[in-house]
Amino acid sequence: MEENDESEIIEHHDDEEMEKRRTPWRNHSLSDKEGVNGGCSTQPSHRLLAYSDALISIIATVMILPVAHTKFQEDEALLSTKIAVYLMTFLIVTVAWTAHIRLFQVIERIDDTLALLNLACMMLITFLPYTFSLMATFPNNILGILLFCACVIVIGLIQAVIVLYGFSRPFLLNDQIQASVNQDYYKQHILKVIMRVPIMCLFASIFSFIFFPLWIRSKVLGGRIEESPDSMPFYTYQPSEPLSKERVEAFSDGVYAIVATLLILDICEDNVPQPSVVRKEFNNNLIAALQSYGPEYLAYFGSFATVGLLWFVHHSLFLNVTKATRLMGLFNTFSLAFVGGLPLAYQLTHESPRGSRNELEAVQISCVIIFFAGLFQLAMFVVALFTEREALHPYVHYGGCEHTFMLAKLSLYPCVALGTFFITCILSRFSTAVFHMMEIGIPVAFLLLRLLLRLALAFLRWLFCSERAPVEDEHSRLPISDIVT
Amino acid sequence: MEENDESEIIEHHDDEEMEKRRTPWRNHSLSDKEGVNGGCSTQPSHRLLAYSDALISIIATVMILPVAHTKFQEDEALLSTKIAVYLMTFLIVTVAWTAHIRLFQVIERIDDTLALLNLACMMLITFLPYTFSLMATFPNNILGILLFCACVIVIGLIQAVIVLYGFSRPFLLNDQIQASVNQDYYKQHILKVIMRVPIMCLFASIFSFIFFPLWIRSKVLGGRIEESPDSMPFYTYQPSEPLSKERVEAFSDGVYAIVATLLILDICEDNVPQPSVVRKEFNNNLIAALQSYGPEYLAYFGSFATVGLLWFVHHSLFLNVTKATRLMGLFNTFSLAFVGGLPLAYQLTHESPRGSRNELEAVQISCVIIFFAGLFQLAMFVVALFTEREALHPYVHYGGCEHTFMLAKLSLYPCVALGTFFITCILSRFSTAVFHMMEIGIPVAFLLLRLLLRLALAFLRWLFCSERAPVEDEHSRLPISDIVT
Repeated sequence: MEENDESEIIEHHDDEEMEKRRTPWRNHSLSDKEGVNGGCSTQPSHRLLAYSDALISIIATVMILPVAHTKFQEDEALLSTKIAVYLMTFLIVTVAWTAHIRLFQVIERIDDTLALLNLACMMLITFLPYTFSLMATFPNNILGILLFCACVIVIGLIQAVIVLYGFSRPFLLNDQIQASVNQDYYKQHILKVIMRVPIMCLFASIFSFIFFPLWIRSKVLGGRIEESPDSMPFYTYQPSEPLSKERVEAFSDGVYAIVATLLILDICEDNVPQPSVVRKEFNNNLIAALQSYGPEYLAYFGSFATVGLLWFVHHSLFLNVTKATRLMGLFNTFSLAFVGGLPLAYQLTHESPRGSRNELEAVQISCVIIFFAGLFQLAMFVVALFTEREALHPYVHYGGCEHTFMLAKLSLYPCVALGTFFITCILSRFSTAVFHMMEIGIPVAFLLLRLLLRLALAFLRWLFCSERAPVEDEHSRLPISDIVT
Repeated sequence: MEENDESEIIEHHDDEEMEKRRTPWRNHSLSDKEGVNGGCSTQPSHRLLAYSDALISIIATVMILPVAHTKFQEDEALLSTKIAVYLMTFLIVTVAWTAHIRLFQVIERIDDTLALLNLACMMLITFLPYTFSLMATFPNNILGILLFCACVIVIGLIQAVIVLYGFSRPFLLNDQIQASVNQDYYKQHILKVIMRVPIMCLFASIFSFIFFPLWIRSKVLGGRIEESPDSMPFYTYQPSEPLSKERVEAFSDGVYAIVATLLILDICEDNVPQPSVVRKEFNNNLIAALQSYGPEYLAYFGSFATVGLLWFVHHSLFLNVTKATRLMGLFNTFSLAFVGGLPLAYQLTHESPRGSRNELEAVQISCVIIFFAGLFQLAMFVVALFTEREALHPYVHYGGCEHTFMLAKLSLYPCVALGTFFITCILSRFSTAVFHMMEIGIPVAFLLLRLLLRLALAFLRWLFCSERAPVEDEHSRLPISDIVT
C-alpha cells in the first residue's frame, strides 16, 4: 500500500510539471519526455533553463552591492555613478537573458554538448558586470569597452554554434520548426538576428579605437532597428512577441530572493561584534553591544517584508496572467530594477541620524522606489488588460469578479508609498515614525485586503447607492463556495 | 498547414487530459485546475515553493562569505571556527528546508493567507545563520542560543498555524489526506512531529539558563528518536521517505548558482582599481594595473567551471533518477556543503605565493573538496541503485546501456581529484601546474566522455577479449538512432 501511494505522489508531481508548461508551444513536452525515456542523449531543457535563470538573476543584482557599501555622506558623485552602473548592468544583463529565452524557445531539447556550451555562455555573461564597472570607473580608457565587446562577441559566437548544432540535429528543435519545410530559412533568420549584436560590437570596438562617442551612438541606433513583421513566431521585433512565462517567473523569483537576503549577507558578515570589543567597551554585556546594531536589524526585517510582499503581488499577478509578452517583460525588468534598490534605501533610512535632513531624504527615496516598483507591476497588468482575451484568465477580465481585488492588490503599494511621501513632506519631523507605521501596516493590510475591499465597496455603495457593487461582491464570494462543495 | 500542426498538438494534449481522468488522483489535479480557473482564492503552490527554495539556498551558502573573506595566513583558529559555523549553518538550514518540503507535501494548494504566513516563516529562517554566528563568536554567552531557540520556536508555531489552517480548509490538502476518513489522526500526528523541535528548543532554552552542555546532549538525543513505522506516507522517519524531486533540484540549482557567482561578487566589488592609484602607481596603464588581479580572474573562471561541471553531473544524475529519498537528500546536502567551500579553496590556490608550502596545501585542499563533492554525488547514485526498480529510469539499471556512461560521468571528478592529489604529493614543486592542467582538461574530458568511454571499452575488450563489451557498445548507440528515426 505504501509503495503504491508513493508512486502516485511522484506521478502527481510529473503531472504538475506538465501543467506548468501551459504555453501553446510547450505542449509537446510529452514527446520530449519520450526522448528521455528512450535514452539520455536528449534531455528536457527545463532544469538547464532554471539554473541559467538563477545565475543571471544573481548577476543582474550583483552591482547593487558596491552601491550598498558606499556610505551616503561620503561621496555623492561616486554614489550616483555606481547607481548608474547598477541600472545599466541590470538592463544589459536582462537583454542577454531575453536573448537566452528566445534562443531556448527555438531549441527545446538539449544534450550534453549543448549543456556544456550553455555553461560556457553563462560564464561570459556573469563576467559582463565587471567589464561594465571598469567602463564606469575609467571612462577615458577603452579597455573596458574592448573587454565588454569581446565578451559580447564570444557570447554571440557560442549562441551561433548552439543554433548550428541545434539545426544539425533537428530533434532538438521546437516541433513547429521541426515540422516546417523551410528550416533553412529559419536558421538563417535566427543566425542573422543573433549575430547582429556581436558584429555591431566588433565594429564598435574597431570604431572605439578611432573615435569614442560613435560607439555609444551606433549601439543605441543599432539595437532599435525595426524589422518588417514576418510570419515568424520567434525573433520578431514586436512588443507582443510571447516570452516564456515560466522563465519570467523564475528570473523574477531569483531577483526577489537575492534582494530580500542582501541585507542579511552584510549583517552576517559585519554585525557580529568582536569578542575583545565587547569585553572592553561593553563590559561583557552582549545585549548592549548588539543594541548598537538595532537599526540594521530593523532595516533587514523592513526590506525583507517589503520585498516579500512585492513578490507576493507579482505572484498573484502572474497567477492571473496566462501569457507574458516582451512589453510586459520590459515593465517587469523596470520593476525589478527598482526592487534591487530597496535594501539600499532601507539601509539609508535607518543609518541617518534621527530628525536630520538626510533621514527625510532617505525615507522619501524609499517611498519613490516602492512607488515605481509597484507602478511598473500595475503597468504589466494594464498591458495584459489591453489584450485580455489572450493574456488574462477569464475571471479577471475587466469587470470580472476578481478584477477589483487584483487591482486593489496591485495599487496598494503605489498608493501607500505616494501617501507616505506626501505625509513626510508635511510632517517632516515625524518622517521615520510615519515610515515605520507604513512598514507595520502594509502586511496587515494585505492579510485583511479582501475584507477591507468589501467594506470599501459597501461604503461606496452606501455613498452612491450604485447598483454595481453588490454584483461584484456576490461574484467574489462565488469561487470559494464552488471549491468547498 | 501551420495551424493544422498546432491543432494536432492540442489534440495530443487533450488525449493526455483524458488519460489523467482515468486515474483517481489525477482527477483531483483537474479539479485543482478548475479551482484556479474558477477563482484565485486557491492557487497551485509551485511558485511559492520555488521562491522559498531560492531564499533558503541563498541563506545556506551565506556563511561561506565570512570564511572566504578571512585571510588564510591571518588566523588559523578563526578560520576553522568560521568553517565549522558554515558547515553547521548549512546543515541546520537544510534541516529547516526538509521540514518545509514535508509540510508542503501535505498542503498542496495555497491561498493568500498561507503565502503570507510562509513569507513570515522564511524571514525567520533567513535570520538563523546570524544567531549561529553569534553562538560561535560568543560560546560563553547564552544570548545566541536563546535567539536561535526563539527563532525555531516561532518557526514551529507558524508551521503549526499553517497546518491548522490547512486542515480547516481541506481543499488545500494533499488529495490522499483529503479523501481519508481519519483526518484528525493525520493532523495530530503532523502537529506532534512539527511541534517536537520547538518544544525541545523551549526546554533547551530553559535548561541553558541552568546548565550549558545539557542543551547539546538533549538536542542530539532528541533529534534521533526512532519512531515505530506506521502507515503514514508523510512524516515518517525512514531514510526511504520520498522528498519532492523538483524541490531537491531547485534547491541544488540555487546553491550551485550562488556558489558559482560567489567570486565574481567579490571581483566586482574589490578588484576595480581606484583611478588615482592607476594614475600614480601604474602611470595610467590600466592593463598593467589589472594584471595584478590576474590570479583572481583565474580563480573565478576555474571555480565557475568546476561548479558548473559539478552541476552538470548533478543534472545528468537527476535526469536518470525518478525519485528522491531522504537518504539521497542527505548525501546531496553533504555534496552541496563541500561545493560551497570550492570558491574559497580556489581563491587560496591562487593567493598563495608560488612554490610555497601554503600553495601546495591549498591545491590539496581543493582536491579534497572536489573529491568529496563528487563522491557524495556518486553515493546518491549508489543509493538509487539499491532500489533501482523504483528510483531509476529503466535504461540506467545495472548493466543497462547508459549505466556505464553515467558511472563514468559521476566518477570522473573524484578520480581526477584523487589523481591530482597524489601527483601533487610527489611532484610538489609543480602542484599549481598540475592543478591548472586538471582545470583545462576536465571540461574537454566531459565533452569527449562518450568517445573516450567507447575507446576505453574497446581497449578493455581488446585486452581481455571479453564478450560483454560489444553488447554495451551497441546498446549505447541505440537510443540516438531511436530518436533520429
